[in-house]
Amino acid sequence: MPRHDQPAWRESMRVRFDFNNAMSAAVGAQGLDDREISRLDASIRQAHATLARRRRAGELEWMDLARATDVVREILDFVESIDGRFENFVVLGIGGSALGNTALSTALNAPYHNLLTLTQRGGKPRLFVHDNVDPDQFRGFLRVIDPEKTLFNVITKSGGTSETMAQYLIVRQLLIEQLGDRHREHIVATTDPKSGELRRIVDDEGYRSFPIPPGVGGRFSVLSTVGLLSAAATGIDIDALLAGARYADEICGEPDVWRNPAAMNATIHYLGYGAGRTLSVMMPYGQALKDVADWYCQLWAESLGKRVNLDGEVVYNGPTPIKALGVTDQHSQVQLYTEGRFDKIVNVIAVRDFRETVTIPAGFPPSAGVNFLGGHTLNELMSVEREGTIVALTEAGRPNVTFELPEVNPFTVGQLLVLLEMQTAYVGELFRINTYDQPGVEAGKIAAFALMGRRGYEARRDEIRRRRRTDPAYII
Amino acid sequence: MPRHDQPAWRESMRVRFDFNNAMSAAVGAQGLDDREISRLDASIRQAHATLARRRRAGELEWMDLARATDVVREILDFVESIDGRFENFVVLGIGGSALGNTALSTALNAPYHNLLTLTQRGGKPRLFVHDNVDPDQFRGFLRVIDPEKTLFNVITKSGGTSETMAQYLIVRQLLIEQLGDRHREHIVATTDPKSGELRRIVDDEGYRSFPIPPGVGGRFSVLSTVGLLSAAATGIDIDALLAGARYADEICGEPDVWRNPAAMNATIHYLGYGAGRTLSVMMPYGQALKDVADWYCQLWAESLGKRVNLDGEVVYNGPTPIKALGVTDQHSQVQLYTEGRFDKIVNVIAVRDFRETVTIPAGFPPSAGVNFLGGHTLNELMSVEREGTIVALTEAGRPNVTFELPEVNPFTVGQLLVLLEMQTAYVGELFRINTYDQPGVEAGKIAAFALMGRRGYEARRDEIRRRRRTDPAYII
Repeated sequence: MPRHDQPAWRESMRVRFDFNNAMSAAVGAQGLDDREISRLDASIRQAHATLARRRRAGELEWMDLARATDVVREILDFVESIDGRFENFVVLGIGGSALGNTALSTALNAPYHNLLTLTQRGGKPRLFVHDNVDPDQFRGFLRVIDPEKTLFNVITKSGGTSETMAQYLIVRQLLIEQLGDRHREHIVATTDPKSGELRRIVDDEGYRSFPIPPGVGGRFSVLSTVGLLSAAATGIDIDALLAGARYADEICGEPDVWRNPAAMNATIHYLGYGAGRTLSVMMPYGQALKDVADWYCQLWAESLGKRVNLDGEVVYNGPTPIKALGVTDQHSQVQLYTEGRFDKIVNVIAVRDFRETVTIPAGFPPSAGVNFLGGHTLNELMSVEREGTIVALTEAGRPNVTFELPEVNPFTVGQLLVLLEMQTAYVGELFRINTYDQPGVEAGKIAAFALMGRRGYEARRDEIRRRRRTDPAYII
Repeated sequence: MPRHDQPAWRESMRVRFDFNNAMSAAVGAQGLDDREISRLDASIRQAHATLARRRRAGELEWMDLARATDVVREILDFVESIDGRFENFVVLGIGGSALGNTALSTALNAPYHNLLTLTQRGGKPRLFVHDNVDPDQFRGFLRVIDPEKTLFNVITKSGGTSETMAQYLIVRQLLIEQLGDRHREHIVATTDPKSGELRRIVDDEGYRSFPIPPGVGGRFSVLSTVGLLSAAATGIDIDALLAGARYADEICGEPDVWRNPAAMNATIHYLGYGAGRTLSVMMPYGQALKDVADWYCQLWAESLGKRVNLDGEVVYNGPTPIKALGVTDQHSQVQLYTEGRFDKIVNVIAVRDFRETVTIPAGFPPSAGVNFLGGHTLNELMSVEREGTIVALTEAGRPNVTFELPEVNPFTVGQLLVLLEMQTAYVGELFRINTYDQPGVEAGKIAAFALMGRRGYEARRDEIRRRRRTDPAYII
């Protein structure tokens, strides 16, 4: 039995959510009291029930991704079949088809993964996640990889993502030039199982492909084939990752807000939003979790930033997520967090035990001013700095909460991702908005199509040209 | 004569500031009109005069960094003296002693610099900027560098930065173990010329060192020895960088807000702040400028996030900076920017000409839906997506401004950095706060000292322990 199936081990690896410093007892006027939270009890229970009902109705497929063990099998078989064949695994994707991949790799692969030797990487490929269409970056990228030793994973559910499809077209030609017919072995597609441009291409070209469940939107897809394939290919234990995800799902099965961390943090953010705390800072103390913050920013922004609510009323709703990194950003953002506007809730992610212990050498005669560090460890330094920041924020009356991971491993990371997804789903219900669409992205996309000269968008192009104001008096 | 001294070339490389979409003619109610701006004219002129006066009085040394040509000479001589000796250049620093270094490298070194071969890098070292004390990352780092081939640049003006000094102590011991007495050749310090712990150590140990002008604070130090040494060591033309900085200084010599881009964007942000647009998004369209956004976030947050104003009144002032990246974050943040609260001003950085042109292959029979891309370039795609986003933001009534760089080169990057610094200085004057201190960072630092058991902080430690509330009812 793998350890992640043992109850005692699971309990020891439970991510804890500490919201002491979101309460008025700790931060005064900017904090909540028990009654405020309990007053929301009915709404939370209703949100909980709505999510459960929609899940049963098959409308929230993302909530069941961690149960798709057949997908895991299929991915692991594929990864085994390519074992040792590729030096580079390249994701061509953007937004929800990139952020989760990066987050998992930064969290769970070794630091500086791409700079390690093949042996140091245990024979696993380097990972590149290409989520921009910068020509300099793209050309530069081609200098550091050998296409012959590279597998490209094209990820787009609709197949209509211009950025990704442009990259694909360039890569395809490059592969054909270098490898002829064998080029198809270097492309694997992750897309809708039935519809869309990329699916059509897959069928015509005969690429290996993995399906994205049609009901799963990009920002909730990290635990689908979207995120799992690159994770498994680079050596991450995706079984344990999904076990952690299922554990968090179990924890979030609790309808009582006082026992459900995701529901509680949703409540803290929802009530905070109403009181002007419209910014949600995600600040992991640990380099490995840096890109989880980036992933969270998409999840929070696209899910909750909505012009209309479910009744069609214009609400311009939208808390703004902000990524930060401890201890680094203590020397960049914490000045503002402690002294600026009372518009933030700071989410700290703490790591109790790092894998390594690094001792700071004891004693160095010439400098009394640094000797207090000697004999301590970087681990202690990280920890006291985190505590120091929390104390400073709290004393300055700034609400903050802490997710504590016992350690960073696939099980705890899987948990954390689901807790944050569930939290987002709860807040979406409380705000009474559609958490799962992104109509605001369309406008820019259509404008880009029009300016690119795509057929069918001529009228829009003319309109944009007509309306574009560039008064030279407003250019300096 | 270098081209950056030729007036025609300079003019052709001028960074343009377009604020059409910050005006009510473009964005309606959230925009400004000419009169609002002109009404602030006297305040801007006063801010301009105050800065000029303080500069003459030697109080704003950062404004004259670009004129210190002797420093450039000294740095270039040093870089020449170590030419070919090191494979790795490692910055040990944090905050203002790290963000500028990273920004310059990402902007002006080749993409994937650290993954290129020595030959591809033109014999220049890889660059690592170590701005965290994560034990896993630090241990991981030691697996990818050979200390024998590495130069460590310890940067801290005060010498009292715990994170940096801890790293230094660890690295020093490692070097001594491996290299004995020769270890000193692998350390170069950048610190106050006279005072502080690191200066004392430098004097005792005999390290090579570079002075940081005492009046220059971390977040305004990128163009001092702090940022220039690693830039020059990795092959960046720091002469051209400073020429660009001087050109921006010249442009900002203009007291008329309608002719001074830094003063104008300061005005737009200041007036916007008063109207509830308290967030400043920095969104470069170009991977190279990604970390300029990060650098800007420190500059803006630490300079403007202040509890008290110059009269000692409690103001809790603080616009919040947010980093984003085009086109990437169109698929992450733009949904919120177009549909969420009217609380943002989006600063786009556009790049007119990239170094490379990457063509998207024309035509691919199986898929009519992607064929509209064929024959175009990634350059065009980048450009229409930027325009598309600007159109979408503008039509949604969201104020946005654009800095356009003719290309990304040392001259334009030097300009951009100074424009953003000057803009910050102007806003600080308009807010009537002390732009140059960071009292809020102290509280956390002292709490960390106390928790680390540093002598002299016992009372604070006891107080923290006494006041720390962790009610288990608030932990889930």
